[in-house]
Amino acid sequence: MALSDLMPIERNEAGIAAALGILKQRFDERLQTGEAVRAQHAHTTTYIPNQPPDGVVFVESAADVQEIVRICAAHCVPVIPFGVGSSLEGHTNAPGGGISIDMTRMNRVIEVNAEDLDCTVEPGITREDLNQYLRDTGLFFPIDPGANASLGGMAATRASGTNAVRYGTMRETVLSLTAVMADGQMVTTGKRAKKSSAGYDLTRLLVGSEGTLGIITALTLRLQGIPQAISGGVCPFPTLEAASRAVIATIQMGIPVARIELVNALQMRAMKNYSKLDYPESPCLFVEFHGTDAGVAEQAETFGMIAEENGGGPFHWTALAEERNKLWKARHDSYWATLTLRPGAKSLSTDVCVPISRLAECVAETEADIEEMGLIAPIVGHAGDGNFHAMALMDPNDPDEIALVERFVARLNRRAIAMDGTCTGEHGIGQGKTGFLRHELGHGVDVMRTIKQALDPLNILNPGKILPQES
Amino acid sequence: MALSDLMPIERNEAGIAAALGILKQRFDERLQTGEAVRAQHAHTTTYIPNQPPDGVVFVESAADVQEIVRICAAHCVPVIPFGVGSSLEGHTNAPGGGISIDMTRMNRVIEVNAEDLDCTVEPGITREDLNQYLRDTGLFFPIDPGANASLGGMAATRASGTNAVRYGTMRETVLSLTAVMADGQMVTTGKRAKKSSAGYDLTRLLVGSEGTLGIITALTLRLQGIPQAISGGVCPFPTLEAASRAVIATIQMGIPVARIELVNALQMRAMKNYSKLDYPESPCLFVEFHGTDAGVAEQAETFGMIAEENGGGPFHWTALAEERNKLWKARHDSYWATLTLRPGAKSLSTDVCVPISRLAECVAETEADIEEMGLIAPIVGHAGDGNFHAMALMDPNDPDEIALVERFVARLNRRAIAMDGTCTGEHGIGQGKTGFLRHELGHGVDVMRTIKQALDPLNILNPGKILPQES
Repeated sequence: MALSDLMPIERNEAGIAAALGILKQRFDERLQTGEAVRAQHAHTTTYIPNQPPDGVVFVESAADVQEIVRICAAHCVPVIPFGVGSSLEGHTNAPGGGISIDMTRMNRVIEVNAEDLDCTVEPGITREDLNQYLRDTGLFFPIDPGANASLGGMAATRASGTNAVRYGTMRETVLSLTAVMADGQMVTTGKRAKKSSAGYDLTRLLVGSEGTLGIITALTLRLQGIPQAISGGVCPFPTLEAASRAVIATIQMGIPVARIELVNALQMRAMKNYSKLDYPESPCLFVEFHGTDAGVAEQAETFGMIAEENGGGPFHWTALAEERNKLWKARHDSYWATLTLRPGAKSLSTDVCVPISRLAECVAETEADIEEMGLIAPIVGHAGDGNFHAMALMDPNDPDEIALVERFVARLNRRAIAMDGTCTGEHGIGQGKTGFLRHELGHGVDVMRTIKQALDPLNILNPGKILPQES
Repeated sequence: MALSDLMPIERNEAGIAAALGILKQRFDERLQTGEAVRAQHAHTTTYIPNQPPDGVVFVESAADVQEIVRICAAHCVPVIPFGVGSSLEGHTNAPGGGISIDMTRMNRVIEVNAEDLDCTVEPGITREDLNQYLRDTGLFFPIDPGANASLGGMAATRASGTNAVRYGTMRETVLSLTAVMADGQMVTTGKRAKKSSAGYDLTRLLVGSEGTLGIITALTLRLQGIPQAISGGVCPFPTLEAASRAVIATIQMGIPVARIELVNALQMRAMKNYSKLDYPESPCLFVEFHGTDAGVAEQAETFGMIAEENGGGPFHWTALAEERNKLWKARHDSYWATLTLRPGAKSLSTDVCVPISRLAECVAETEADIEEMGLIAPIVGHAGDGNFHAMALMDPNDPDEIALVERFVARLNRRAIAMDGTCTGEHGIGQGKTGFLRHELGHGVDVMRTIKQALDPLNILNPGKILPQES
């Protein structure tokens, strides 16, 4: 399947019209049906064609969500939850039309339990707003995908980011959640205990289900204590292989590295130019250590020795916030830096994840593929997790280029799966990767479909996502 | 529901007879139907009445498991997976008869990927045998429930133990698994990548499902590097509250404590007598730190200061293996120490888990309840997780005592749930705790039942476990 040729889901015109009428009566101005707002709610940061919903309701409570789901269920109309629209794989598109549920007004912090290192929030709050709220507690919420995403969206796509190697992903970070199921009933999946063996793990079933099994209306999240000290720096390596060996040794030695990011030579060139960094244009590791003053110094020194043993260096590290912030700003600005490599182009950012023993090989083969296909596609990765991104630049109006990039993405996904990896480490399946799921999980797809059919027999919850449409 | 009065599941006599005939032809001597072996396979370390299966098959491959499940499915006969029988809540009982699948011959290590810190094993291997196998790799498998349990059983009950506070539970440790589903088909839930956003989290759905959704035939597990240094010791506190405050401060400061166990005064008395420990009979914390030489010294010193600030101490710590081993042997022998408090008695070990801010209150109320009810029931707990055990002693032939202990357990579970905790942190629901699941999770039970019915429509996979029989 080509991404640019997504199969439509049949529209239930009569049902949609009836549901819109009832929703208008009930929600009045909170239901928006203008073209711009509808297109904006299908907008994702991809080039996947925009498939707008028929209306957008700005909800303010879980009861609102329940009411919408019940109305839509009664008329067999799709509902699509919406956070900030930063998803990369078409998650908020409405291929069969329906109602987008905009969560931005459900952005409250319900409670913070500092002693238990947890908090409960509504799904519309963004990660930056949550950390702003927490600033006086000595705690922080660690997970940082590039975008300032909503927590509900991050849970729904099982998001992670640069410091998942230390603090885990949304899989480990969501303690429990509340969701509205397809029949409009609310379910709370757990209590606030840090662990539980009480029955099926409904929390983990809903985390990563991309709005297809339930619509999240509250989340209880694990928080972390702000470390006493942070150190970090950049270390160049002669080859990807050498950098990779240093990553493996660092993890094996049990150094509790907080971030260890691989940046390939082309990405370094873009970042050097864009962010005025003074490093060679060779593969580099960006690292960060969290702990006590003595601890972060020891970690940085040990890492420096590991790097040297693997032919890398020099490794300059610092505990000064200003210098560190410059490095990490450059890392987070890699998207903009990449765009400067070809002015006017759009990018397709894709992600795969492999066992770290295969990371160097997978990146090297991908670089060779990029070279051979004549693409411009720098690579950055969360090396400690074996997760990396390639950002391919293309002219969005040139069908040949789009087809070429799609071929590149397909080859990358198959390569990762063949190396015992996954077609997505953190972006999710959405619409863009449904074609790879059976290749990765085989009969597992049928088990997923059985669960979906049991919990959402009318297929109204975010249809057309995750599960491939197979004939 | 009283534990001693479990509702039976209707036996399908004709189906059982037919299945036994076919299994005998196929497995010959590997099918055992003698009374002793059947009773032994229903044996669990509880006083829950023994409900033996009709036959036990000693399997040697996943294909054997598939064949048994297909034969049993065709005749609507229950199948119950069996590891070592160390479960505490009646997980291996056969309330409707059926076939026990004994996994002890499926105990191979399939592969170890040292660079990726993972391994793949068959479900019958025990945690001690796995660690023995790993001894030359510099790696270890961290999860240590009291018993030398099988890895399949530990995954099925979402087990944990003393160092879950640092290394997580089976929820975090199982990377992926292979299982035979109710229709006899095999499913592999994931690849070896450390993280994935590819569809529903079938791994976490099967971990903790207690054999009711699929029968695990292989597991890929995360391993840890053996730390360079270990330090630890015991610290007495004047009150539970003081010990609890020290635990909270330790976690909040981000000290990566590997073990932090709470032992109440009565348990200390038993352990002192049994293991010849020289500590006061007051609440104590047993702690252990993993890291570099400098790191574990710093962690121990910081913990000592925290303890002192909270009225505890003196805290003597050591990095000498011999001294540490004596302490942890005493901790692990607490079961035997407890039995000496009332010679001839049997024990019922129960577990709950609450947010750590509620731990002191929950333990104190439970101690008061024990006192008031005239029970002997020492308490030990994985304090860093808010998880604790009460081990009530009783005469197994005295129905009044059994009823009293059941009332105690019921009150403890309701108390934990009321404090935003769970009725089981690590033992699982099995038969013993089905009565508390709806109280804890409400409509979540219906969602679980919907999933169970969709994936096992004939209810042949370990029936009578997890889901309450409600009228």
